[in-house]
Amino acid sequence: MNTFGYFLRVTTWGESHGKAVGCVIDSFPSGLKVDEDFIQREMERRRPGGKFASKRKETDKVEILSGVFEGITTGTPISMLIWNVDADSSAYESLKTVFRPGHADFTYWTKFGVRDWRGGGRASGRETAARVAAGAMAKLLLRRYGIKVMGYAKEIAGVRCEVDDPEKAFERAEKSPLKIPDRDAEREAEQRLKQAMSDGDSVGGVVEVVAKNVPAGLGEPVFGKLDAYLAYAVMGIPAVKGVEISAG
Amino acid sequence: MNTFGYFLRVTTWGESHGKAVGCVIDSFPSGLKVDEDFIQREMERRRPGGKFASKRKETDKVEILSGVFEGITTGTPISMLIWNVDADSSAYESLKTVFRPGHADFTYWTKFGVRDWRGGGRASGRETAARVAAGAMAKLLLRRYGIKVMGYAKEIAGVRCEVDDPEKAFERAEKSPLKIPDRDAEREAEQRLKQAMSDGDSVGGVVEVVAKNVPAGLGEPVFGKLDAYLAYAVMGIPAVKGVEISAG
Amino acid sequence: MNTFGYFLRVTTWGESHGKAVGCVIDSFPSGLKVDEDFIQREMERRRPGGKFASKRKETDKVEILSGVFEGITTGTPISMLIWNVDADSSAYESLKTVFRPGHADFTYWTKFGVRDWRGGGRASGRETAARVAAGAMAKLLLRRYGIKVMGYAKEIAGVRCEVDDPEKAFERAEKSPLKIPDRDAEREAEQRLKQAMSDGDSVGGVVEVVAKNVPAGLGEPVFGKLDAYLAYAVMGIPAVKGVEISAG
Amino acid sequence: MNTFGYFLRVTTWGESHGKAVGCVIDSFPSGLKVDEDFIQREMERRRPGGKFASKRKETDKVEILSGVFEGITTGTPISMLIWNVDADSSAYESLKTVFRPGHADFTYWTKFGVRDWRGGGRASGRETAARVAAGAMAKLLLRRYGIKVMGYAKEIAGVRCEVDDPEKAFERAEKSPLKIPDRDAEREAEQRLKQAMSDGDSVGGVVEVVAKNVPAGLGEPVFGKLDAYLAYAVMGIPAVKGVEISAG
Repeated sequence: MNTFGYFLRVTTWGESHGKAVGCVIDSFPSGLKVDEDFIQREMERRRPGGKFASKRKETDKVEILSGVFEGITTGTPISMLIWNVDADSSAYESLKTVFRPGHADFTYWTKFGVRDWRGGGRASGRETAARVAAGAMAKLLLRRYGIKVMGYAKEIAGVRCEVDDPEKAFERAEKSPLKIPDRDAEREAEQRLKQAMSDGDSVGGVVEVVAKNVPAGLGEPVFGKLDAYLAYAVMGIPAVKGVEISAG
Repeated sequence: MNTFGYFLRVTTWGESHGKAVGCVIDSFPSGLKVDEDFIQREMERRRPGGKFASKRKETDKVEILSGVFEGITTGTPISMLIWNVDADSSAYESLKTVFRPGHADFTYWTKFGVRDWRGGGRASGRETAARVAAGAMAKLLLRRYGIKVMGYAKEIAGVRCEVDDPEKAFERAEKSPLKIPDRDAEREAEQRLKQAMSDGDSVGGVVEVVAKNVPAGLGEPVFGKLDAYLAYAVMGIPAVKGVEISAG
Repeated sequence: MNTFGYFLRVTTWGESHGKAVGCVIDSFPSGLKVDEDFIQREMERRRPGGKFASKRKETDKVEILSGVFEGITTGTPISMLIWNVDADSSAYESLKTVFRPGHADFTYWTKFGVRDWRGGGRASGRETAARVAAGAMAKLLLRRYGIKVMGYAKEIAGVRCEVDDPEKAFERAEKSPLKIPDRDAEREAEQRLKQAMSDGDSVGGVVEVVAKNVPAGLGEPVFGKLDAYLAYAVMGIPAVKGVEISAG
Repeated sequence: MNTFGYFLRVTTWGESHGKAVGCVIDSFPSGLKVDEDFIQREMERRRPGGKFASKRKETDKVEILSGVFEGITTGTPISMLIWNVDADSSAYESLKTVFRPGHADFTYWTKFGVRDWRGGGRASGRETAARVAAGAMAKLLLRRYGIKVMGYAKEIAGVRCEVDDPEKAFERAEKSPLKIPDRDAEREAEQRLKQAMSDGDSVGGVVEVVAKNVPAGLGEPVFGKLDAYLAYAVMGIPAVKGVEISAG
């Protein structure tokens, strides 16, 4: 079950240290101009490499293999592929026989009886690269309808920042390595992160996402509510443990 | 999109003041003894009628129309029906031309261009009667595997109660009209509810659900995570605005 | 898996000698006037009772329990129910411990380990009553787009009739108890049917279905081709063993 | 809708003259040894290049990009890719502004408003390369259960050959360029094919497929019948116009 969506569907595939990760987007409308620079910028935004995240260098160049002809979507499945170029498994050799607490290693082992221990295998943050590529295509589609989706860190390691204007907050956060819209909060969060890292600990956080110009009537009335489907999508990201909608 | 589930699926149907509400459960395993008394007790637990909820009297007798032969499930679809016996629409006559704030009236109108204004139509809490009937069948199935699901109100109107032992809390809550496991908290919550009612206001709350004996490996690794699917299910209930998993 | 369709979905339920059979139609467009007389006439067309079919009297009155308000579809699921009024199981008592050759009795037993032996249970032609009810709704929808679907028997027991004009053939066939558009062919087929019945045998046949005013571009390009989906639907009817499209 | 299957699913993607074609197989069981030589032999069997088919040279080397670790399936999605190495679009330049009769060119244009005219785009026989790769994996899985699927040409251009023993017929057909199990029939069919080619015509044919050791109870009872699902699959292949099951 590696597919998300009903009318528009994305299937992701790939392991952290396999040859590549990628996705197939099905039922994407035809006639949309594909802005590849935008897709690449979205990949950059996701890419680890700051002081506080995984040290892996991921160039994450997206190759579009189908569904686009002369720069325009054709209505056929869009296959996107990202080669794994910096997949040095040696660092994970020690995990071959060890289950990391809090990771999905043990669950995979129980469920499948076999596991790709290199870098978390499929249960790696690396898998989200394929989601970001698909998400970039989705954003291009939403743009056509004037819908804008913006996200930023509202809380990191207990440091919270109040946000009045989501659009301005989003712009400020885009310039911040921690994606925090407030300079003071960022400095404080950095301090706590450094402390946590030297303690060998991890920290939690809260991300706020705001969508503008969403028309009334999207989503389905009962089980496929927009609220419910968004919660479903977000909870599918490893490490997400809670979702609240509006003043939830 | 009135269907939930993939391997085991439930489709609900029915409006608040239509002839009936009901559901069809598909791919339910064969060979399970159907405990109709248990199903009826679950319906009782859902039934409004206390001091603080809708005044509607709902007897909610579940009729099983298919999929069960000589008290045993046959593997074919189980159709369950609950007649709407106390569906007096006259109280809603005034809503024929008015949209209630915070209700789905306006969204239905925008999406479908037509709406059953009687008692909220399909966007009524009444629809959950069909879910409870299906949920009772699901509980009978989980029982076979020793899995027990328990829920209680952890917070009502800002009154929170701490819970050490979920099983004991569940037993206590079952005896409480507000399903609160703590007697003092219940009294305090009742006070606040009365106040809110006399102010013409509504209040929020938190429900805690605990599942015991769940084996490792249930759910799907990426999009169909057990966490994510539960969030999806719960957010589909009208008025639910947030979901947290474990120490989310 | 008792659901057919993706964008518009129908789920059927019910056993031959259970309380009722029925269906739930989901994602049916709102705003369509429901012509209940037409639905009932479609049920009549399906109803056995001629000299050459099952002797069961089926009144097949369809009750619409949801999804229709003041005669108009609302976009919510349409639940249709047909009570089983002439379900005398005693005639099947002898089949309690016997598997009929060519029927699904044995397969059900193998798959589910339990079986409703009364009248074929779910694997009965009775199940198609629910499909006809749903099909009648679908025809009402197609009518809105000027699409007309017509069917008639082209061959029965080896007697074939040539058809030049499908619309005229359809009109003639509607008046024929065997739904054969040619009077001579009908007489000959009747003779062969009588012979087969007195021999305790059954016969085969070919049904031709013609759809008019179908626009180009319906269906999906690869797996969900209109051809393929129609074949899928038709082969799901018990006793259908072959499908050909156009000059197949 | 480029996905086939429910419990085991395959999604194909790719255009005839795009960069590549491929597929993602989801929910494939873990722990199966992947015989890559077998997969490659299946690709060889499909490959055009005889006297009577498309002149395109397709090496069709399958690259497995995910879902297999140390030669064993892991339960995660299996992404398979086949580069399009001999995709010379110049031969199709003249079709840029012309719709070929009997091809899907016009339908695509009507449905999507844009079309990849190179080599039929997605509506090319080339797309079946991805299905064959997925089918090879499926055959490896069926082999585990002793199920063997065999196919051969039973009729080409009106030349029919009688088959007594499907297994022997299959072995003989495997050595025939036309996959006909009978040497005389093959010679006759070759003559007729040559004639048709010199007339600028095409011919029809019948393929017989036999599956051995299939257990009772596979498939779903009503809409997802094994018969119906097979018909659905086969009718999704371009140019297939009819399906018959057993003595259909």
